[in-house]
Amino acid sequence: MKMSFPFSAIVGQDEMKLALLIAAVDARIGGVMVFGDRGTGKSTAVRALAGLLPPIPVVAGCRYNCPPGSENACPAPEAHRPGKAVMPVPFVDLPLGATEDRVVGALDLERALGHGEKAFEPGLLARAHRGFLYIDEVNLLEDHIVDLLLDVAASGENVVEREGLSVRHGARFVLVGSGNPEEGELRPQLLDRFGLSVEVRTPQDLAQRIEILKRCDAFERGPESFVESWRKAERKTLKKIGRGKDMLPAVTVPDEILSLASRLCIAVGADGLRGELTLMRASRALAALDGDATVAPSHLRHVAPLALRHRLRRNVLDETGSTARIDRAMAELIPA
Amino acid sequence: MKMSFPFSAIVGQDEMKLALLIAAVDARIGGVMVFGDRGTGKSTAVRALAGLLPPIPVVAGCRYNCPPGSENACPAPEAHRPGKAVMPVPFVDLPLGATEDRVVGALDLERALGHGEKAFEPGLLARAHRGFLYIDEVNLLEDHIVDLLLDVAASGENVVEREGLSVRHGARFVLVGSGNPEEGELRPQLLDRFGLSVEVRTPQDLAQRIEILKRCDAFERGPESFVESWRKAERKTLKKIGRGKDMLPAVTVPDEILSLASRLCIAVGADGLRGELTLMRASRALAALDGDATVAPSHLRHVAPLALRHRLRRNVLDETGSTARIDRAMAELIPA
Amino acid sequence: MKMSFPFSAIVGQDEMKLALLIAAVDARIGGVMVFGDRGTGKSTAVRALAGLLPPIPVVAGCRYNCPPGSENACPAPEAHRPGKAVMPVPFVDLPLGATEDRVVGALDLERALGHGEKAFEPGLLARAHRGFLYIDEVNLLEDHIVDLLLDVAASGENVVEREGLSVRHGARFVLVGSGNPEEGELRPQLLDRFGLSVEVRTPQDLAQRIEILKRCDAFERGPESFVESWRKAERKTLKKIGRGKDMLPAVTVPDEILSLASRLCIAVGADGLRGELTLMRASRALAALDGDATVAPSHLRHVAPLALRHRLRRNVLDETGSTARIDRAMAELIPA
Amino acid sequence: MKMSFPFSAIVGQDEMKLALLIAAVDARIGGVMVFGDRGTGKSTAVRALAGLLPPIPVVAGCRYNCPPGSENACPAPEAHRPGKAVMPVPFVDLPLGATEDRVVGALDLERALGHGEKAFEPGLLARAHRGFLYIDEVNLLEDHIVDLLLDVAASGENVVEREGLSVRHGARFVLVGSGNPEEGELRPQLLDRFGLSVEVRTPQDLAQRIEILKRCDAFERGPESFVESWRKAERKTLKKIGRGKDMLPAVTVPDEILSLASRLCIAVGADGLRGELTLMRASRALAALDGDATVAPSHLRHVAPLALRHRLRRNVLDETGSTARIDRAMAELIPA
Amino acid sequence: MKMSFPFSAIVGQDEMKLALLIAAVDARIGGVMVFGDRGTGKSTAVRALAGLLPPIPVVAGCRYNCPPGSENACPAPEAHRPGKAVMPVPFVDLPLGATEDRVVGALDLERALGHGEKAFEPGLLARAHRGFLYIDEVNLLEDHIVDLLLDVAASGENVVEREGLSVRHGARFVLVGSGNPEEGELRPQLLDRFGLSVEVRTPQDLAQRIEILKRCDAFERGPESFVESWRKAERKTLKKIGRGKDMLPAVTVPDEILSLASRLCIAVGADGLRGELTLMRASRALAALDGDATVAPSHLRHVAPLALRHRLRRNVLDETGSTARIDRAMAELIPA
Amino acid sequence: MKMSFPFSAIVGQDEMKLALLIAAVDARIGGVMVFGDRGTGKSTAVRALAGLLPPIPVVAGCRYNCPPGSENACPAPEAHRPGKAVMPVPFVDLPLGATEDRVVGALDLERALGHGEKAFEPGLLARAHRGFLYIDEVNLLEDHIVDLLLDVAASGENVVEREGLSVRHGARFVLVGSGNPEEGELRPQLLDRFGLSVEVRTPQDLAQRIEILKRCDAFERGPESFVESWRKAERKTLKKIGRGKDMLPAVTVPDEILSLASRLCIAVGADGLRGELTLMRASRALAALDGDATVAPSHLRHVAPLALRHRLRRNVLDETGSTARIDRAMAELIPA
Repeated sequence: MKMSFPFSAIVGQDEMKLALLIAAVDARIGGVMVFGDRGTGKSTAVRALAGLLPPIPVVAGCRYNCPPGSENACPAPEAHRPGKAVMPVPFVDLPLGATEDRVVGALDLERALGHGEKAFEPGLLARAHRGFLYIDEVNLLEDHIVDLLLDVAASGENVVEREGLSVRHGARFVLVGSGNPEEGELRPQLLDRFGLSVEVRTPQDLAQRIEILKRCDAFERGPESFVESWRKAERKTLKKIGRGKDMLPAVTVPDEILSLASRLCIAVGADGLRGELTLMRASRALAALDGDATVAPSHLRHVAPLALRHRLRRNVLDETGSTARIDRAMAELIPA
Repeated sequence: MKMSFPFSAIVGQDEMKLALLIAAVDARIGGVMVFGDRGTGKSTAVRALAGLLPPIPVVAGCRYNCPPGSENACPAPEAHRPGKAVMPVPFVDLPLGATEDRVVGALDLERALGHGEKAFEPGLLARAHRGFLYIDEVNLLEDHIVDLLLDVAASGENVVEREGLSVRHGARFVLVGSGNPEEGELRPQLLDRFGLSVEVRTPQDLAQRIEILKRCDAFERGPESFVESWRKAERKTLKKIGRGKDMLPAVTVPDEILSLASRLCIAVGADGLRGELTLMRASRALAALDGDATVAPSHLRHVAPLALRHRLRRNVLDETGSTARIDRAMAELIPA
Repeated sequence: MKMSFPFSAIVGQDEMKLALLIAAVDARIGGVMVFGDRGTGKSTAVRALAGLLPPIPVVAGCRYNCPPGSENACPAPEAHRPGKAVMPVPFVDLPLGATEDRVVGALDLERALGHGEKAFEPGLLARAHRGFLYIDEVNLLEDHIVDLLLDVAASGENVVEREGLSVRHGARFVLVGSGNPEEGELRPQLLDRFGLSVEVRTPQDLAQRIEILKRCDAFERGPESFVESWRKAERKTLKKIGRGKDMLPAVTVPDEILSLASRLCIAVGADGLRGELTLMRASRALAALDGDATVAPSHLRHVAPLALRHRLRRNVLDETGSTARIDRAMAELIPA
Repeated sequence: MKMSFPFSAIVGQDEMKLALLIAAVDARIGGVMVFGDRGTGKSTAVRALAGLLPPIPVVAGCRYNCPPGSENACPAPEAHRPGKAVMPVPFVDLPLGATEDRVVGALDLERALGHGEKAFEPGLLARAHRGFLYIDEVNLLEDHIVDLLLDVAASGENVVEREGLSVRHGARFVLVGSGNPEEGELRPQLLDRFGLSVEVRTPQDLAQRIEILKRCDAFERGPESFVESWRKAERKTLKKIGRGKDMLPAVTVPDEILSLASRLCIAVGADGLRGELTLMRASRALAALDGDATVAPSHLRHVAPLALRHRLRRNVLDETGSTARIDRAMAELIPA
Repeated sequence: MKMSFPFSAIVGQDEMKLALLIAAVDARIGGVMVFGDRGTGKSTAVRALAGLLPPIPVVAGCRYNCPPGSENACPAPEAHRPGKAVMPVPFVDLPLGATEDRVVGALDLERALGHGEKAFEPGLLARAHRGFLYIDEVNLLEDHIVDLLLDVAASGENVVEREGLSVRHGARFVLVGSGNPEEGELRPQLLDRFGLSVEVRTPQDLAQRIEILKRCDAFERGPESFVESWRKAERKTLKKIGRGKDMLPAVTVPDEILSLASRLCIAVGADGLRGELTLMRASRALAALDGDATVAPSHLRHVAPLALRHRLRRNVLDETGSTARIDRAMAELIPA
Repeated sequence: MKMSFPFSAIVGQDEMKLALLIAAVDARIGGVMVFGDRGTGKSTAVRALAGLLPPIPVVAGCRYNCPPGSENACPAPEAHRPGKAVMPVPFVDLPLGATEDRVVGALDLERALGHGEKAFEPGLLARAHRGFLYIDEVNLLEDHIVDLLLDVAASGENVVEREGLSVRHGARFVLVGSGNPEEGELRPQLLDRFGLSVEVRTPQDLAQRIEILKRCDAFERGPESFVESWRKAERKTLKKIGRGKDMLPAVTVPDEILSLASRLCIAVGADGLRGELTLMRASRALAALDGDATVAPSHLRHVAPLALRHRLRRNVLDETGSTARIDRAMAELIPA
């Protein structure tokens, strides 16, 4: 078992960490898109969050990561063994060039050829259930696979209709995609379906860079002692997430906040209503993380760039970047 | 079983709802094309209408959704079990990248390999029988599949000739396709074969947007109670559809209406005769929904944009949009 | 069994109907190409003619539509059963995206896998034998399939050499292709191989359009009574075709007509000799339909646009349309 | 058995007929390329020559058209039956879109699947052995298949190395390809490998065209009597070919002719030496046809356009057509 | 067994040899990219280094090059035989056109077909374990295979998820790719993932070229005696590598060096942090090779062009080559 | 058994013949590239040389052309029969469109399907072992196959790693490729890997052309007597090759020659060192052919155009052809 880099030891990258925490608290957010330079540790952060979370209880022998008590919904209960088991929070790194059948699952070749049976071989979606699915350079993936992943991420369920198979299994995960806008863009239709987006840049502060170098080196040369030295910070983050999840159902969103969200979307020109739905969900999750019972304008202001940045129509008359346009609109609507 | 959002709780989208009700009353309309922004809940409306309709009686064990009494026409009567059963009105969301054999059905691999039998594995068309088939971004589907779907939607029958199989089964469904004209267009030949088209835009009214947000949130957080609160409105809509279907055969279309329809098509420059055929059918269905025994000019005026908008030749000298050209022609022909 | 729209009830479309009648009288004409707007009922006319013709006698059990008396030429006589049978005149609508093996026939997979036998599974060409083969949007079909279809239509025989199979069966049918010149053209080499071509336009006459609407509606709402009301007209058309077929071998083509045909081809600039061969055959068939024992200039004039229109070289100095160029040349050669 | 149009009844097309006779006398000529308009009866002429020649004796049961006495060289002697048989001179019309394995032969699927044997299923090359192979629109065939056909035509042998098969069988045939230069050209490398080329144009003479029409009509309406009426002329042509074949080995080519051939090639700028080799062979075959024991300059002059026309480099400074350039050079070298 | 050219006998190519020695000391460097002219012996150098290293101990019979003591981690322990074995350091030359399954391994066809078992057939990655993987013209390989190779090279592990197989085995190797920038470039995303890059040019010094010729000739004509004559030099190089590996964990990197590395990256404009991570690792490996306990600026200066050259953004305002830009920045930051 | 044209009877083509003799004496030269016009008998020369050489002794029954005494290295010794056998020197003419598995060998389908065994079916490389491999129009072959062929030609060994097969067998042959530079060029990377290149042009001398015509005709009409008349000349050539092979190991290359070779490469601007390595090898082989114990400048001058012509960078400032540039440089360095 390889150790993963501690989430708390990540230097900078505040937006990225915020988006991951929000998604950890409310999975309905529906996916995080990460724009940014190469070599900035994007997958490290996601992997770190997965490594931070406590192991999850599963039915022993289950290949679908079924939680104890949901045995009946499993498409392959015959593999279950008595008793419970735990496993680390799944982290799946989708390989470039992955084909649809490796993602969703497919006919089990061995059993088809060897025993003439038509059985289902679960795919990467089953493996990511209850965890994280990371796609590096999502813009290089075929559109219909991205679409499929977003569908599953939104519904929490993988429904397979292929080769005479008809299978349905849980597939709730936080979808994180990364992409470099300089290497080809996602279609707006697909971008819009990501809940949040964050921007990651190479830090330009010398001290910060040296600190990163040192931490990487320390982790590379002595992972155990490095992880040990961050254990306390990790525990604190874990507690924060737990509290957020507990509070979430009770957090209220005042009408004033909904109105602000709508006006913000109209002001910046986001098509459709996914923008304000995400603003509502993300600000509520942030309030829960902060321990606040009611969503306040400050929560909304905090999450707005993450929720709207990737939903703006290109405006040929206004070359201002997306983030700046959102900031300007917020400044007018929500005086700080 | 997931609950679906109540049809009556959909805010705005009047054109979309009208087209769906017309198609529910007269399936010969032949498909509804939805143009519009992303994130405006297009599939939600279709799914809602399917969820609203009462369960349909089927032959027990039948994989072709055969209605009791038509057992003899079923291609696989050997699977039938004694007795009747009911099932919800089918709603099939055609996956992007669906191949022809998944749509129409294909050779059953398991039985071919395991037992050397050539049996038919029904496809999505069989599953959609007597319900709805929704295709998101229909412009991204291959032309020959769109063509095939429109053929089946028009004839109500799926005829398969492949791999030595020769199967014929009922496939009556309301076909609904959505597309964003900014992302590539359908060939005029295909567009023309859709009966109706509607335009869906993001609402710009603040109160309406907030109302949508609130309803989505209420449904998301407590589906049962939300659905319960709309039960009465749903029942009313259901009654309206039932009455429309009953009245339809008796509604008369006066010659004056046919003449108006033809003159309208000539005035706006719609090729072929599908435009006026659709005007005739759609205005009759609307009259039936309204409980009127005779089609009146007002019915025609109401459905004209839906029936003609997607059939207009592009006129390089007249940059007016399709809808405006239809409105102008109607104003001249049918003084309100 | 679905009923088809009566041939005699088709409003207008005189050129189309003429070409179909000529092809019904002399199948050596070799195919009819229909240019025209969408939604003008092109396939309806072909299907109507097939529906009009009397059922044909076949060998019972034969999958190749073999006429009684030709059992020995059938590639699968083992399926024949004693006694005669009749079947409606075949009408095959070639599906877009049809592959070569579905068209010509292929190895029977079931028997190959299940019994290790190499048997032939007849294709759509066998099914169209002695009837009609309709190809909508023939310009979208692959060139080599169009070529193959024209070869078979010309020779009346399907010769298959594939996968170690060597099969030969009758495949005499009237080939009808439709295409919209705005959507891509056929190569001149292929166009030239169609015997006749016709142009179909949306009628611009209001009364005609209303009449079409009424007839479609009447047929849609009560097919039996509608068909009944046209039975007499149908019988008359049928008699005309029968007389034409009977007379055909005896009709003479005077040298003067051959000379006129050649001069016409030279005048309009049609490459090769297929133009005048078709003029000779088509004018003879028309004379037979008209009950005339000798071809007259008027017959030639009548069929000339159908026989030559699609064979003209594009003349960059003369932008006059093909039909006008033929009319002009005829006016000079055959004073009316 | 269909009858073929009599070779002698072909009107005009003198170059085409000459080339076919030369190839019939000396198969080493290596292929005839026919350039020309569509609808000029190119395949008719080739088919006619094949139909004219007397049936050939073959080993009974042999699928490789083996002549009696060469049983040992046959790759499938196990199919031979005792006794001799005769068959018509083979004429194979290569279908557009023919794949390599249909042309050269391939693994016999039935025996491979059914009996686990690796046997060879002969292809079109075996069927064309000792006859004619016609390729319509050779420019649409894949280059590597054209290359392969020319290789076999040149060597008279088909050597197959595929799928673990190693088969060698006789494949001597006259290869005739047709093409319309307006539809894409063959690579010069491939053109050069054809021995002769001819040009076929639509005749512009009215009397000739009418004569063609009449003969086609007479043949179409009464093939037997038409063929009978040309029997004498056919016999004469047959005798001429027989005499040519007999004389060929004895015809001498004087040095003066070789020198003329070389000087002609240099004068017109034909790359390589295939031009003069073909001039030598073709003029010798013509002398043999004419019953002359020695090749004379007139023979050379007669065949020069056929042998060189397709081998000329394009000369940007001299837009004169190929044939004219050859005529000019001949006029200087061989004063008539 | 072919002998390989002695590493020490390679004339010139100092950068290349330095990069290989660094990678031999610290495999975490992650791959060496070689830019350069054709015919300069790039693969010879890599092969030479592999040939120089002492044989490695392996588990007898193991197809995964497992070191003794790690039998439990092997995916196919059933093939192990008792006892130890040694093998030469693996050198795998990835063939152009290698497919993904040949690289990563795939389902064992024989066992699948013959025994109905789903076993894994290891690929080239397994064969390269504990050795070198050389890719000539890496720019011609498909991106997703390069990506996959870099992933494995970075993680030291090959994780296969295909066709229902789930296999994980050690795959630690030095990845060396060569490419000619004139023949198409790697995407910056991929280039960045190579640890080091070197430039190899044809030597222009006459004496050096003659020396190379002589050594090649001597090796070609008498490999044994040539190798013998370089044995002492080889032993010295081997000792140097061994010492470097031993010292590596103890070498310290002062903060001043980290700061220099960061400032250098900022100055030359390298995106992300891989540049300075590589500078840190490579300078430490060089110090170890030199026998120095602490990294000094001179070490950094020595490795900087290798670590940064391929990570520079193209600067349209500064056409200076990458190497010159690095030299200039170093001269300012690290006065020699 | 077809006879081949005598090598000595080839008129002209001195460069081509020289290159083939050099390659026959020292196979390490690594391939001959022939540039030239079509129809100049390129393959004839190669085939002639193969036909000239004496039959080679082989192990009876061996499909890998194994020489007696090397039975142990054969991948299929089970096919060997006791006793020796001889076979003509192999000549393989690589078919255009040959796929990789036909070239390198592949899984034996029959044994895989029939017996569940995974056996190797040798390809064309095995058949060419110890002979000649000729590729017409090598520029039309896929790059990766050319690359593969050059690899094998250079190493004398075919190493196959496919479909779970791992086979290694001898594949020493003289590779000869032809190409017309006007039809697309090989990548410089591939060209550089051919040892020698020659230019073949259509002879412009009349007497020579007539002589060629006469010899071709004589051979075509009476191969036996023609071959007999050249037997003495052939024997002389054969003796020369034998002597060259014997002398080769003892020929010395003075330093002065190496220096000249390097200076020549620098002067003409050949990238890499393959140019001078080939100069060294080719001049040594020529000396051996000439019976000289030491390489002299005249040998170098003789082979320089063959060794360097295809390795020159295109120089935009100097439009002089490659051969002229080499001649000029030689004239300066090696005063005749």
